[in-house]
Amino acid sequence: MTSVALTGIGELSTQDDELGLLHDAALVVEHGRVAWVGPAAQAPAADTAHDLGGRAVVPGFVDSHSHLVFAGDRAEEFAARMTGTPYSAGGIRTTVAATRAASDEQLAANLARLVDEMRRQGTTTVEVKSGYGLTVHDEARSLALARQVTEETTFLGAHVVPPELADDPAAYVDLVTGPMLDACAPHARWIDVFCESGAFDEDQARAILQAGKEKGLGGRLHANQLGPGPGVRLACELGLVAVDHCTYLTDQDVDALASSGTTATLLPGVEFSTRSPYPDGRRLLDAGVSVAIASDCNPGSCFTSSMPLCLALAVREMGLSPAEALTAATRGGARALGRTDVGHLGVGACADLAVLDAPSYLHLAYRPGVPLVRETFVRGRLT
Amino acid sequence: MTSVALTGIGELSTQDDELGLLHDAALVVEHGRVAWVGPAAQAPAADTAHDLGGRAVVPGFVDSHSHLVFAGDRAEEFAARMTGTPYSAGGIRTTVAATRAASDEQLAANLARLVDEMRRQGTTTVEVKSGYGLTVHDEARSLALARQVTEETTFLGAHVVPPELADDPAAYVDLVTGPMLDACAPHARWIDVFCESGAFDEDQARAILQAGKEKGLGGRLHANQLGPGPGVRLACELGLVAVDHCTYLTDQDVDALASSGTTATLLPGVEFSTRSPYPDGRRLLDAGVSVAIASDCNPGSCFTSSMPLCLALAVREMGLSPAEALTAATRGGARALGRTDVGHLGVGACADLAVLDAPSYLHLAYRPGVPLVRETFVRGRLT
Ligand SMILES: [Zn+2]
Ligand SMILES: [Zn+2]
Repeated sequence: MTSVALTGIGELSTQDDELGLLHDAALVVEHGRVAWVGPAAQAPAADTAHDLGGRAVVPGFVDSHSHLVFAGDRAEEFAARMTGTPYSAGGIRTTVAATRAASDEQLAANLARLVDEMRRQGTTTVEVKSGYGLTVHDEARSLALARQVTEETTFLGAHVVPPELADDPAAYVDLVTGPMLDACAPHARWIDVFCESGAFDEDQARAILQAGKEKGLGGRLHANQLGPGPGVRLACELGLVAVDHCTYLTDQDVDALASSGTTATLLPGVEFSTRSPYPDGRRLLDAGVSVAIASDCNPGSCFTSSMPLCLALAVREMGLSPAEALTAATRGGARALGRTDVGHLGVGACADLAVLDAPSYLHLAYRPGVPLVRETFVRGRLT
Repeated sequence: MTSVALTGIGELSTQDDELGLLHDAALVVEHGRVAWVGPAAQAPAADTAHDLGGRAVVPGFVDSHSHLVFAGDRAEEFAARMTGTPYSAGGIRTTVAATRAASDEQLAANLARLVDEMRRQGTTTVEVKSGYGLTVHDEARSLALARQVTEETTFLGAHVVPPELADDPAAYVDLVTGPMLDACAPHARWIDVFCESGAFDEDQARAILQAGKEKGLGGRLHANQLGPGPGVRLACELGLVAVDHCTYLTDQDVDALASSGTTATLLPGVEFSTRSPYPDGRRLLDAGVSVAIASDCNPGSCFTSSMPLCLALAVREMGLSPAEALTAATRGGARALGRTDVGHLGVGACADLAVLDAPSYLHLAYRPGVPLVRETFVRGRLT
């Protein structure tokens, strides 16, 4: 057994006991887990040491919502939107066509590039959804590819109804809950539905989530993004681990979230990139709701992979304090994935962490856009 | 003489003739200047070649407004502001105290770190102001240090009235226009005044700019940031090269800008970091005003050094198209510094450029927060 001590940590946020802030700290890693954490002066001996030069350390970000299996990009659609064309989910079909036409190798290369880009920005756990295949074959291969890079794979056949079944959405729901689910379940941990006007309604969402549950998949939802809707209440009723977007919420929705174990995942990069109103994160926190921040990295509504930017946006636009935003991007993301082994740096946790070129985690919001993540450790190893 | 060809440029924005967009382009550098630019298939032979693998190339960013000579940071003030304490320029005095107490070596190290951070984000020309010394000695040493890293140095003794002269601002203006100017002028190209309620009024600004002019310094102004004021009209009347912030403008201000040669420099990172309303960039462009974007990197109102983020904010928040934002961040910044040798990649220009990990400049706005600058060349050399 080899132990590694990370020394010279100027400021450490463990995310245990709220922010869990320590100064002049050290952390000892054994078997990829945190074996000891505390004041540098009390650190036990370790086989090797890595001095962080007084920098700040935070838990690696847990990005609980992304769509990274796709081909092509939609930069022109973005430019058109910024000069006046409003966002519509119909653009998803552009990516579906490109994804179906791509080889496995092309999809895998794009996926690997984006996961690497995320890691360089401090993300150490990422959930990846399918949803740009929308055939049995293309959804299954999307998830098989995603499984190569993460355990947190989500079957999102119910992203949109594909063009070839536009006239018969019920037939598509049958496909999703039948042969597509059969092919995808072995590669997935979660099942997700885009529950929104123009995508899938409450009854369809309920049927799809139920079918997934019978195959052992945990449920999660895209809901209340483009307008008020039934998705958030449904997620709470079904006891899902997370419901994502939560931009348009009634008081009843907020009450339902507050009295459930469901985490509300906010995706501020989407509002940034679609020029939409931001969700009111402050209202959720004040009501006692569990809140996460994730990137929603995807080629249409939000092509940022930057959890630091999402955190800065949560502070600027959604009323979170820098401390609350860090928690939402780490422990909050872990809760949204039902994980207790990541998103914090308590003893026993995975030694997943980001070293910042800054003296404090506050700089993540204080210095927006600056690539502050100097090094990322996954399971105690520098990546 | 050694010539270097940059080949395999998937998309090149020269910024000559509007965006000046070329695909499958090459660029040949001699003596640090662009000697040839055009379609790859027609490129002349060069001594060495550097293949950019189909990536996009843009002119290096020209950041015409920053405050990089200081010590300490104000992360706690930022956190307080984000949780309810409004921004006030009074916080500048915190940085003044820290800067006066710092050694030359400390100031130089912080400055070098920030310039390097900027370069890694594609900035190849940066203007640096004094303004945290506010004594003859501390302003002069600030500018001497700034001159070590850039030709574009600006004497901003008129940043705020220092605490020791709070009761006698007229005496401070005498100091700024007298002994302080004498000591600073040899190290400066520009003189600047923070012309705003609570800082310096129109008459003071006029006197300070006039004194600078007599010492050979070009004038520029901070104006109309916190509310309407006389600064923008004064800048146009005096024919200054640039007036910066321009958040609160009357129709008369916009007319004055449109009929002058003065560039309006917008600093969207400030509005992001102070949670203030953004200036209306669209209104300025539609009126025919010359517009630049800069970072205003400083430890108080905006501690981002990221021109890509400023560009993305200009698109999201100020109504610029991605193309207009790129122009404002390159050719616009050059205009704001009276420079024709930077901010574009036409023949004869400095070979200052950024290579993006992206197929198009559009990704700078489409992928906010992502560190897309892969390589930065200054005078044709990879840095
Ligand atoms: Zn999504
Ligand atoms: Zn400034």
